[in-house]
Amino acid sequence: MGIAIIGAGITKFGELWDKNWEDLVIESSKEASENANIDLTEIDSCYVGNMNLSRFEGQDHVAPRINEILGIKKVVRSEAACASSSVALKLAFNELELSSIKKENKIILVVGFEKMTDRITQNVTEILASASHYDTEVINGATFPGLYALLASRYLYETDANENDLHAVAIKNHKNAVLNEKAMFRKEINLEDFKIDVATPLKLLDCSPISDGSASLILTTEEYAKQLDVEYVKLECVEIATNTISLAKRNDLLVLDSAKRASEEAYKKAKIRPEDIDVIELHDCFTIAEILNLEACGFAKRGEGYKIVRTLEPYDEINKKDAPIPYIINGKKLFVNTSGGLKAKGHPVGATGAAQIVEIVNQLLGRCGKRNVNCKIGAALNIGGTGGSAAFSVLRRPW
Amino acid sequence: MGIAIIGAGITKFGELWDKNWEDLVIESSKEASENANIDLTEIDSCYVGNMNLSRFEGQDHVAPRINEILGIKKVVRSEAACASSSVALKLAFNELELSSIKKENKIILVVGFEKMTDRITQNVTEILASASHYDTEVINGATFPGLYALLASRYLYETDANENDLHAVAIKNHKNAVLNEKAMFRKEINLEDFKIDVATPLKLLDCSPISDGSASLILTTEEYAKQLDVEYVKLECVEIATNTISLAKRNDLLVLDSAKRASEEAYKKAKIRPEDIDVIELHDCFTIAEILNLEACGFAKRGEGYKIVRTLEPYDEINKKDAPIPYIINGKKLFVNTSGGLKAKGHPVGATGAAQIVEIVNQLLGRCGKRNVNCKIGAALNIGGTGGSAAFSVLRRPW
Repeated sequence: MGIAIIGAGITKFGELWDKNWEDLVIESSKEASENANIDLTEIDSCYVGNMNLSRFEGQDHVAPRINEILGIKKVVRSEAACASSSVALKLAFNELELSSIKKENKIILVVGFEKMTDRITQNVTEILASASHYDTEVINGATFPGLYALLASRYLYETDANENDLHAVAIKNHKNAVLNEKAMFRKEINLEDFKIDVATPLKLLDCSPISDGSASLILTTEEYAKQLDVEYVKLECVEIATNTISLAKRNDLLVLDSAKRASEEAYKKAKIRPEDIDVIELHDCFTIAEILNLEACGFAKRGEGYKIVRTLEPYDEINKKDAPIPYIINGKKLFVNTSGGLKAKGHPVGATGAAQIVEIVNQLLGRCGKRNVNCKIGAALNIGGTGGSAAFSVLRRPW
Repeated sequence: MGIAIIGAGITKFGELWDKNWEDLVIESSKEASENANIDLTEIDSCYVGNMNLSRFEGQDHVAPRINEILGIKKVVRSEAACASSSVALKLAFNELELSSIKKENKIILVVGFEKMTDRITQNVTEILASASHYDTEVINGATFPGLYALLASRYLYETDANENDLHAVAIKNHKNAVLNEKAMFRKEINLEDFKIDVATPLKLLDCSPISDGSASLILTTEEYAKQLDVEYVKLECVEIATNTISLAKRNDLLVLDSAKRASEEAYKKAKIRPEDIDVIELHDCFTIAEILNLEACGFAKRGEGYKIVRTLEPYDEINKKDAPIPYIINGKKLFVNTSGGLKAKGHPVGATGAAQIVEIVNQLLGRCGKRNVNCKIGAALNIGGTGGSAAFSVLRRPW
């Protein structure tokens, strides 16, 4: 028997000035517990992913604050920058796999959150930069838009891709976000909107926004999920991998090796191939990231991810359809970032990993309304920094 | 079969101006791998405990930096303030328990570290304060000496304990540190040295110091340890518990409930009673903490921990013996903080949990020289903040 996700909840993502981080954590966790049909008091332990409440709001030691607001008696915090809550999910998976073998009926909450707009001192870009190499990148003035711009420059230099291929990723993801009421940017964009430069070649609309938000998942063993008689999705595996934090120490700038290793291991564990996946949330903190991750996860060869994006052509017709548009890979549909992705749904860094899983759970259970796609196998790739950390999860409809 | 600790390494603790945090992590990890007789390249995954490199040195996303310096391909960072590396140990334990059942031969590194003296901006007390409730404690000016002073005041008010009972804890732990070449303060102290006030009733010498340091542990399954033919200690269990972060929300100020729950669960798992323990590293960030933790862990009733300390009387003779002096509980010896404890060995917060285990491993293997005590069962209690987090571990000589 395997691991089951029986509840998934998410707040609206955005600049949520009227709520504090605790409100958000409570909101997404209540939604998750309600659709799992359990009470929060039934939860045995909690893994919380958060990048940096310490610098955003002065609060380290998040675990006992979760105890204070949700009453859970065992709470563990993990941090892996933007992959923080995927690592939390992995740790929950480990605990549950053990409890499945021991025939214990544990219920675990995974919650990821970030409140990025209420910062007390430094600016957000400075805080986020701490996820790159402090001594050689941050201190030399590097920011994440700058680091990803470097990757994008190299990509455009080495391949036949052009800036429009980057922009098309954003146009698609904005389109999907229009269909997602929890998304931050519910507004269609077109090629002519890419005007403001951020870090060449990235335009403002190639970048994900600074957001507030929280996402929660409730997990148990498949056996217990059946006893509880609740609808669930099977979590086949969560595989994590770590790479060098600095770009300068990578063998190949264009290969996100941690994403490659995590996905390869996940395919092996779940006994699937990339082409078996129907829907995936694929880390798109910048448009170039979605392309590099298509390659890293085996959907395209190195340097050929942009060709997959081109299956969306003509780009100025992407907004004509009132449903998610898939990429076409060898004749088969692959829906990527139906939620709107980090790009348009929003990117409250600690929440992102859990939020990706929320979308896939809802897709597999057919709860996504207009953006629902036909799917049986879903996945999520979440990375931290420029790929220093990665987590790849495979989910499946159990029926 | 259970879990084995096959390697334990620790740097000197102190104000280490000539080393950076990476030097420290490498040093303790090399020592651990050398006494485990393995190469760092043989390690499958790593759990790193660190409280706040982000605010001490600007670096979040510690995991991929560990990849960069040690080459380990899966690294997870946990944070639970001063209990960060005990949580890392718990997560490693979970992974190994699973791999033991699956008959996989994994080797895991647990490393805890903190570099507190190279801070880039804020003062250390302000950074540490982030482990208490930001909105209601930090913002009102509370610091950890202040919060523990509150607990000490209440203790002296409710019980017949006096300030000398607090000081005796420090005198004992300084005495032990003299025998530990890795300790920060290798200097005997006496009652007349407690002159400088920090936060009434706590004197400067009732407080643990700000320190740099790193501690590493190498773990595998007992089965594989036997195959490797290496000396090891059995790690029976690591139990964690979470409580409210704010003192104001506790039912009883004098009961560190997380330590109580973690220890009770550990006793159950390890099938022992408190009186079976021969040697324990017991979280003593302030002298009052050692007393409260003696009570929380079942060595004394609530409000009676000071009576155990009084078995050291007369306090001005503690320094006469050239070996650790035990407490006497119902006629049986209990050695507490033979390493010198946080108080005198030093307290680089993220390193502390792992460092406590290093001492117990070395005690059980008879590697502590002059401070070696006769022991078969050892334990460690590590807490975060004022007890918002706790971890209790039980270790045993396998022969």
